[in-house]
Amino acid sequence: MKLFRKLMSLEEALKTVLSYAKSAEIEEIVFDDALNRILAEDVRSPINSPPFDRAAMDGYAIRGEDSFGAAPNNPVLLRLRKRQREKGKESRVEIGQGECFTIQTGMPLLKGSNAVVKLEYTKESGDTLEIFKPVTPGKNVSFTGEDVTLGEEVLKEGKVLRAHDIGMLASLFKTKVKVYKRVKFGIISTGNELLDPTESFEGENKIADVNSYVLAALTKKNAIPHRIGIVRDDYEKIKSAITYSLGAHCNGLLISGGSSVGKRDFIADAVEDLGKLVFHGVAIRPGEPTGFGIVNNKPVFVLPGYPVAALSAFELLVRPFLYDIHGLKEERRKIFAIASKKIPSAVGRTDFVRVKLLCTKNEYYAEPIRVSGSSILSSMTKSDGFVLIEENKEGIGEGEKVAVNVRD
Amino acid sequence: MKLFRKLMSLEEALKTVLSYAKSAEIEEIVFDDALNRILAEDVRSPINSPPFDRAAMDGYAIRGEDSFGAAPNNPVLLRLRKRQREKGKESRVEIGQGECFTIQTGMPLLKGSNAVVKLEYTKESGDTLEIFKPVTPGKNVSFTGEDVTLGEEVLKEGKVLRAHDIGMLASLFKTKVKVYKRVKFGIISTGNELLDPTESFEGENKIADVNSYVLAALTKKNAIPHRIGIVRDDYEKIKSAITYSLGAHCNGLLISGGSSVGKRDFIADAVEDLGKLVFHGVAIRPGEPTGFGIVNNKPVFVLPGYPVAALSAFELLVRPFLYDIHGLKEERRKIFAIASKKIPSAVGRTDFVRVKLLCTKNEYYAEPIRVSGSSILSSMTKSDGFVLIEENKEGIGEGEKVAVNVRD
Repeated sequence: MKLFRKLMSLEEALKTVLSYAKSAEIEEIVFDDALNRILAEDVRSPINSPPFDRAAMDGYAIRGEDSFGAAPNNPVLLRLRKRQREKGKESRVEIGQGECFTIQTGMPLLKGSNAVVKLEYTKESGDTLEIFKPVTPGKNVSFTGEDVTLGEEVLKEGKVLRAHDIGMLASLFKTKVKVYKRVKFGIISTGNELLDPTESFEGENKIADVNSYVLAALTKKNAIPHRIGIVRDDYEKIKSAITYSLGAHCNGLLISGGSSVGKRDFIADAVEDLGKLVFHGVAIRPGEPTGFGIVNNKPVFVLPGYPVAALSAFELLVRPFLYDIHGLKEERRKIFAIASKKIPSAVGRTDFVRVKLLCTKNEYYAEPIRVSGSSILSSMTKSDGFVLIEENKEGIGEGEKVAVNVRD
Repeated sequence: MKLFRKLMSLEEALKTVLSYAKSAEIEEIVFDDALNRILAEDVRSPINSPPFDRAAMDGYAIRGEDSFGAAPNNPVLLRLRKRQREKGKESRVEIGQGECFTIQTGMPLLKGSNAVVKLEYTKESGDTLEIFKPVTPGKNVSFTGEDVTLGEEVLKEGKVLRAHDIGMLASLFKTKVKVYKRVKFGIISTGNELLDPTESFEGENKIADVNSYVLAALTKKNAIPHRIGIVRDDYEKIKSAITYSLGAHCNGLLISGGSSVGKRDFIADAVEDLGKLVFHGVAIRPGEPTGFGIVNNKPVFVLPGYPVAALSAFELLVRPFLYDIHGLKEERRKIFAIASKKIPSAVGRTDFVRVKLLCTKNEYYAEPIRVSGSSILSSMTKSDGFVLIEENKEGIGEGEKVAVNVRD
């Protein structure tokens, strides 16, 4: 049995992992399938939006100058042009001096007019319109390109497309969009003690495989998980599972092991045997027995067996890797909170501390969830997120401000 | 043409809408399909987790008492029991006084032992183990039920299931879980001026239908959107579209209109004609021409035509409705930020202000995006979230703390 004599710092481990990150392929998809995908191009507008001057209010299109001097007790009178017989011909009406024409929000502004007087400041009587309030030229008009001008950059490469971004693409008639193709990651749990939760629970010294399910759910956010399931602690079986996954269909692999040193080396040795084990052992807690290697030119993350440790390693190393290869440029949103208690931490390792957030009227408080070990999955379900305590920090004092990474 | 003489306050509108919210049906699904779904039952653990006492470290199972007095220069010597010939029989080994047996993290603790001494404080030589540090009974052991005890409530009804919750379900062999069934909402855009963005852009006084795409993308988070598309401004066509959608397959409807008063009434009248228009006109900006009705016992939201106004009305009325019928008990996560500028607002209406978040080392600043009207979709894509300024507030001062609702 070996021990980790030297642990790599999280900073160095992350730098190392990212140095192996190869950008995912780009695919062009229909814009309304692109929700939550990461944009792989800068989108510039092919049109002006709106594409023409249009009414921003319901009312009457007029020449603004004609309304000058209007007042409640001294209305200006304009000649009301009548609707055209033929439908769709309204936009060809031209407004002359002293004339007006009814207009609805969003309709193109009529030729000759330059403002819209709102309905509530007018009164129609036959062919005449009374106006009780003046409007300056340009008033209540949305001008061509007011929202977006032709050629303007509207969405930047590397952003996640949200609902309103989909709307923006629609408004520009941009119906195809380039996004990063989601890579496929194989997910394997190893351990003789594991049972798939769908197998009947025998209660005989077996525990459920949690990791392949959690890691698949976490991976789903940015990539396509391929849950391979449980592989027994058999050196040859583990080697073939790795070879099989990477050979055929997966772009990378997450393999979590029984977290004992013996078992850990088992997987790490298999990776070294098949390719190259780049590092093994990281100064994070939980998650110390994390490793990383390259097999078939593809990344293999060797993750701890304890679910909380595997989650910690995923958040600290795998997620940034997935963000990087998929071109995500946005930072993960953090919530700043006040530590409600002292959070101790040892110098020389990065601590992954689960916290619960308490929200007052305009402040968050972060309460650490005290647990003894990384086997305590309930520390995750009870928490709202996690705080990292850096390697060189001796802990966090009560009342100190911390950045909480919120679950998603 | 009619005007909204009396606007309903947001508070009252929301209360009214929610009074019509009927809880969605409950369905039982496979646990690993339940990611991001809303739990419809309290989950109590059917087992202890871990189900047996087990080693929390790699090392040797011993009786803790036997190690008392051990020191680097004065090791305690124990008799090392040998591995059994037959595989899988290790767990039947019983540790007597002065004995020890090798054990790996996660393995059941051997009968007779009560502690694990860590590998690094030991040295094996033949049949003898030297121990250099004492362990108290219970040390390095995960006890039965330490994570979750039999019958303990682990997940509460109304919560969104995250990756680690899926893991918790796996660990408890709870492979089926009750969640709220997503309702299906029809989505219609109305307007003669609208073109579907997939149609060729003619530039002839037509604008793209943005709303049906944005509303579908927003709805997707909690429900199943059924995008019906564009219906022309024809009273009968609108009536049949509503009847068709609600009659057959949709549990509710979002219908956004050209935002002119005339057109608004068109849709509102159709709703009144087919069922009951509960209210029309809400004191929010943007989003004033929002209405709500019941047709065929199903909810119909009448939304403004301008995309930003439709988004505002969705966030303020439709989203809470969808949360409510799907049983979501979690509050939406807010970010507290300092207003970097004064944000003016008129008393008597609730303002939906788009803001950009600027993040410093441990503080957020919210910068309002100044725009002239609700036609400015780029105000959404440039923003990170929105702030609500309540009806009775005269605006927000520079430096004041605000709660920002972040996009998702």
